[in-house]
Amino acid sequence: MIDLRSDTVTTPSERMRQAAADADVGDDVYGEDPTVNELEARAADAVGMDAALYVPTGTMGNQIAARVHTERGQEALVEHESHVYKYELGGFAQHSQLQVRTYDGGANGCPTPEQVREGYVEEELHRPGTGLLCLENTHNAKGGVAVPGEELAAAADAAHDLDLPVHVDGARVFNAATALDVDPAELLAPADSVMFCLSKGLGAPVGSMLAGSEAFVERARRTRKLMGGGMRQAGVIAAPGLLALENRDRLDVDHENARRLAADLDAVEGLSVPTPDSNIVLVDTTETGLTAAEFIERCEDEGVQGSEFGEYTVRFCTHLDVSESDVADAVAAVERAC
Amino acid sequence: MIDLRSDTVTTPSERMRQAAADADVGDDVYGEDPTVNELEARAADAVGMDAALYVPTGTMGNQIAARVHTERGQEALVEHESHVYKYELGGFAQHSQLQVRTYDGGANGCPTPEQVREGYVEEELHRPGTGLLCLENTHNAKGGVAVPGEELAAAADAAHDLDLPVHVDGARVFNAATALDVDPAELLAPADSVMFCLSKGLGAPVGSMLAGSEAFVERARRTRKLMGGGMRQAGVIAAPGLLALENRDRLDVDHENARRLAADLDAVEGLSVPTPDSNIVLVDTTETGLTAAEFIERCEDEGVQGSEFGEYTVRFCTHLDVSESDVADAVAAVERAC
Amino acid sequence: MIDLRSDTVTTPSERMRQAAADADVGDDVYGEDPTVNELEARAADAVGMDAALYVPTGTMGNQIAARVHTERGQEALVEHESHVYKYELGGFAQHSQLQVRTYDGGANGCPTPEQVREGYVEEELHRPGTGLLCLENTHNAKGGVAVPGEELAAAADAAHDLDLPVHVDGARVFNAATALDVDPAELLAPADSVMFCLSKGLGAPVGSMLAGSEAFVERARRTRKLMGGGMRQAGVIAAPGLLALENRDRLDVDHENARRLAADLDAVEGLSVPTPDSNIVLVDTTETGLTAAEFIERCEDEGVQGSEFGEYTVRFCTHLDVSESDVADAVAAVERAC
Amino acid sequence: MIDLRSDTVTTPSERMRQAAADADVGDDVYGEDPTVNELEARAADAVGMDAALYVPTGTMGNQIAARVHTERGQEALVEHESHVYKYELGGFAQHSQLQVRTYDGGANGCPTPEQVREGYVEEELHRPGTGLLCLENTHNAKGGVAVPGEELAAAADAAHDLDLPVHVDGARVFNAATALDVDPAELLAPADSVMFCLSKGLGAPVGSMLAGSEAFVERARRTRKLMGGGMRQAGVIAAPGLLALENRDRLDVDHENARRLAADLDAVEGLSVPTPDSNIVLVDTTETGLTAAEFIERCEDEGVQGSEFGEYTVRFCTHLDVSESDVADAVAAVERAC
Repeated sequence: MIDLRSDTVTTPSERMRQAAADADVGDDVYGEDPTVNELEARAADAVGMDAALYVPTGTMGNQIAARVHTERGQEALVEHESHVYKYELGGFAQHSQLQVRTYDGGANGCPTPEQVREGYVEEELHRPGTGLLCLENTHNAKGGVAVPGEELAAAADAAHDLDLPVHVDGARVFNAATALDVDPAELLAPADSVMFCLSKGLGAPVGSMLAGSEAFVERARRTRKLMGGGMRQAGVIAAPGLLALENRDRLDVDHENARRLAADLDAVEGLSVPTPDSNIVLVDTTETGLTAAEFIERCEDEGVQGSEFGEYTVRFCTHLDVSESDVADAVAAVERAC
Repeated sequence: MIDLRSDTVTTPSERMRQAAADADVGDDVYGEDPTVNELEARAADAVGMDAALYVPTGTMGNQIAARVHTERGQEALVEHESHVYKYELGGFAQHSQLQVRTYDGGANGCPTPEQVREGYVEEELHRPGTGLLCLENTHNAKGGVAVPGEELAAAADAAHDLDLPVHVDGARVFNAATALDVDPAELLAPADSVMFCLSKGLGAPVGSMLAGSEAFVERARRTRKLMGGGMRQAGVIAAPGLLALENRDRLDVDHENARRLAADLDAVEGLSVPTPDSNIVLVDTTETGLTAAEFIERCEDEGVQGSEFGEYTVRFCTHLDVSESDVADAVAAVERAC
Repeated sequence: MIDLRSDTVTTPSERMRQAAADADVGDDVYGEDPTVNELEARAADAVGMDAALYVPTGTMGNQIAARVHTERGQEALVEHESHVYKYELGGFAQHSQLQVRTYDGGANGCPTPEQVREGYVEEELHRPGTGLLCLENTHNAKGGVAVPGEELAAAADAAHDLDLPVHVDGARVFNAATALDVDPAELLAPADSVMFCLSKGLGAPVGSMLAGSEAFVERARRTRKLMGGGMRQAGVIAAPGLLALENRDRLDVDHENARRLAADLDAVEGLSVPTPDSNIVLVDTTETGLTAAEFIERCEDEGVQGSEFGEYTVRFCTHLDVSESDVADAVAAVERAC
Repeated sequence: MIDLRSDTVTTPSERMRQAAADADVGDDVYGEDPTVNELEARAADAVGMDAALYVPTGTMGNQIAARVHTERGQEALVEHESHVYKYELGGFAQHSQLQVRTYDGGANGCPTPEQVREGYVEEELHRPGTGLLCLENTHNAKGGVAVPGEELAAAADAAHDLDLPVHVDGARVFNAATALDVDPAELLAPADSVMFCLSKGLGAPVGSMLAGSEAFVERARRTRKLMGGGMRQAGVIAAPGLLALENRDRLDVDHENARRLAADLDAVEGLSVPTPDSNIVLVDTTETGLTAAEFIERCEDEGVQGSEFGEYTVRFCTHLDVSESDVADAVAAVERAC
């Protein structure tokens, strides 16, 4: 079975396993885990921020960011198909008493400066003021689309002009930087904080990083405790995380595989598959007459797994555990399925 | 000065004042205020519900409804220009831990059944399930537009098919019923709860009603206490509220005045004013080159007050304290202002 | 029936009713109700604060105060039998995300400076910092006991040394000032905010006041909107409220009646009744063998109403609508009941 | 340096490290991590519950339990020195809108049935009803005291008679079972849910378990996602967790070491040290004239670490990484320090 459901499904490499076994550890609640400390330093560096915090999941990273940046009773501006809005169980309202206001970021999910200004609400007697702008890069629901630096900067600048902090859900931000061929630190320079996942394309078994200013991360550390994310000898999972950072350099392989997969699937009768920016391939099954659920079931019978992303949309992700020949096999399997 | 800012500005009539003075009162926290009890019974009757609760404001009524209908961690479907979303300080997140999801109800603010089904989210591992559909009738931000019974029923039926309760923000629901020439009870039959204001077009100085089933109102009564809305000898304000219910029969006068105002203003060069359904007149000032704020300032200098409703949109409301000749005077004042 | 259940049961006087009828009103959401404005000014003055806000209930006043003084994720120090802790539906957690920490204020409900320091928690990684000290004067559950100025000041000073704001639930603070024979403004000088009720001993039908600094009240006004407490022509109830302020001068009559009631009931076989500080008389029924519920039932049969305050404790309140002869009749009724 | 600050400081054994390296893993968000699944099954079995959930921390486990067992607007009964109340950042108010009510569980932290009944509040108009009883076993702040089965059962029975669910914070519940020489499943039979830590005495680097009925764990799994605790290839840390379960059998060694440490320290002039039930030794430094902070500083200079537990109370924990000779060395170090 070729598992293209998500890039979260990668299993750790032998080197990562060995790193877990060999990790130098301590109690991270006391700040004494050297491996976690090293990972936090390197992660901050990788995204050009002052400091970073290790968190068990990307969801926790995003939720902590929202809480630290805002006060209760504010609004957060989020994309209408973003992960923080759709797939985090309404956490902004649950954890941070925030009302969400959505913008439609179009093809790449990034708002125009005008959309930021339109979505902004000034605090007044009847209205909660806006307290946060959230961006997502790459944008998952749009098909792993990479938001170019200028667009991201323009949106962030518009936010900053309104005194709004900017958080980037960068679960796959290294995929974005790879797709755009830019330095991640440069891409993220306009942001106040970023969350990225070690456990997606980078291939770590567990964990995400939340990065920002020193003051932001200090407050985030306390909020992590509130959320129940303050682990002990986390070096065991931070060590594979350090190796995962090295995998930034091979994301272009996943992207190349995704492009090949997309091109070959687009050639299959009835399927419509746009060229992907990164490692996420969205397949439109409408013309086959098969719903996404039906299509996925047939594909599974033929040895390929994908995930439902809409009534007639299926998502395939390439990742570390998918080789060039897996792609060819996957295409053949889909052809049989159709 | 002719005050057309809102229908909330009406001052109580002599009869209402006398009723306040003469009210038979008791401690309503103990359920012993006969005037409140009578008002609650009559209000329930007026909207065809089993029971009703007196609340100090419409905002409290809507917020209580949301809390009673839902559980924490759900979503509420609300119109993107609705009062509950725009003007209640993000209360759904604050009081009820609800994530809002907006629909664009178009010209009258009512969603189509399809929009209800599209906006509905089924509870699953990553997603908060939808717990409430909110409607608004008349819809303030759309210009006091009355939602016809069939449309409201279709939306509510779609919600019920999904096991969603339906709350109607009916702050001006008697304006809606008047505009549509239907029995309010019939109009609201598909809803599970409704809030309406005594202190808007009906002319009471203070107070709103929240109506629904007996079980709903029993829970609402407790939630009112939590919100700090359990008043004592509230009969003093419930008595004018009883008289306010009688004013349902004269709302057509306000509507007639609004139509006249709209027609006459539309004839003013540079102003564009659609024919209103009820007592809210929206004036588009774009062609005058004046922003809403500038236009309002000039109008005030000429003796008419309105309220800003957008960068180039001004709202004028007709109400109990605006006579036919006030309308003529207002038009003349606006002409001078332009 | 002589109603001694609470001082909330008073019905408005003829003068109050006439004042309601004659009130000069406007839309208080716009700050345009002259009667409300006057009431707010006079109320602030009465308690020696810079500004005050009219709120529908004392519960709302206390809850707004907690929210304005604190940030989410803090603790509030409250008395273990205080109203804010026992009778406001857990509002501190609901509205303000506050964890309560209780102190036992002993006979008068006021903490010693040492108790304040002991209850104080410094913010650290694992612990929410304390954000508020709440006091209550008179303390209802202790039997309307008046907290002397020096004790209140000592507690408040201890709090201020820890940078804690101090809110006084002064639902009956004029009873306290009367009992202590001090100027309320002097008594409250050490507090940062105070809520007092117009609808208890002062005899207004509806309403309470929340007073504090200008900045505090400005934020409170916005929070009142969030809570659904922003009423319109509230002058109708503010006018009786203004007259209620005059009733401060007659509270000694209620206290005298309470002392007489207590002394006479204490003489009844089986009843134990301490001398009250103010208008609240607590009757211990243990030796009669009757539970509070049974005792109250019998009293009602004889024409006197009280309220259950513990398994063997009954509360009787004197108030505006209880005369000296009512007290004598009440004693006679209780004697028959025993 | 001998680290007796906490039993959380243990570093993973070689076997655990190898287990991490060799773990059979999958994506646990999809329920496909065989090692996590095995751990959850074994953990449930170890505490005699139907099902269990792997969570990153004990705090998250406790907070999820509170949220799943209750509805917003209720109260939770917690011990006044319990971990959930003191060291989880007010999470019950933050995550679950719960007002806490404390009981003083005395020497072992367990309430009497009478205390449960006294602390219970019936839901009524003014009062939040109680929704949860929390117990802690062993009780950390009391000095690792083990609550005997009969006492725990009596408290739980009293709660169940009031329809209250019972959650046990069993961070160190295997220490309790060892101290009491009972089967943990038997000890916990009266509870509805239990959280226990793999990362304390059991020696795993990361992780805790939350166990209860199938329905409870299903809801807990969703709430874990909300809290940001749904990790991916968590088998890497679940594998050491499986080995940690085996360490249940050696906790008596830690307890024996703790008793020896306590006895020897009690013999040191100026120190008062009661005999411990389990692995937590509380040292009273009052007679030395040294505060806990001063005492700890001196001890560190001599090569032993402890943690501050009160102004004159120091906590020493024995654990996997503390041998019998470490205990002797620690005693010698403390003697030098005094």
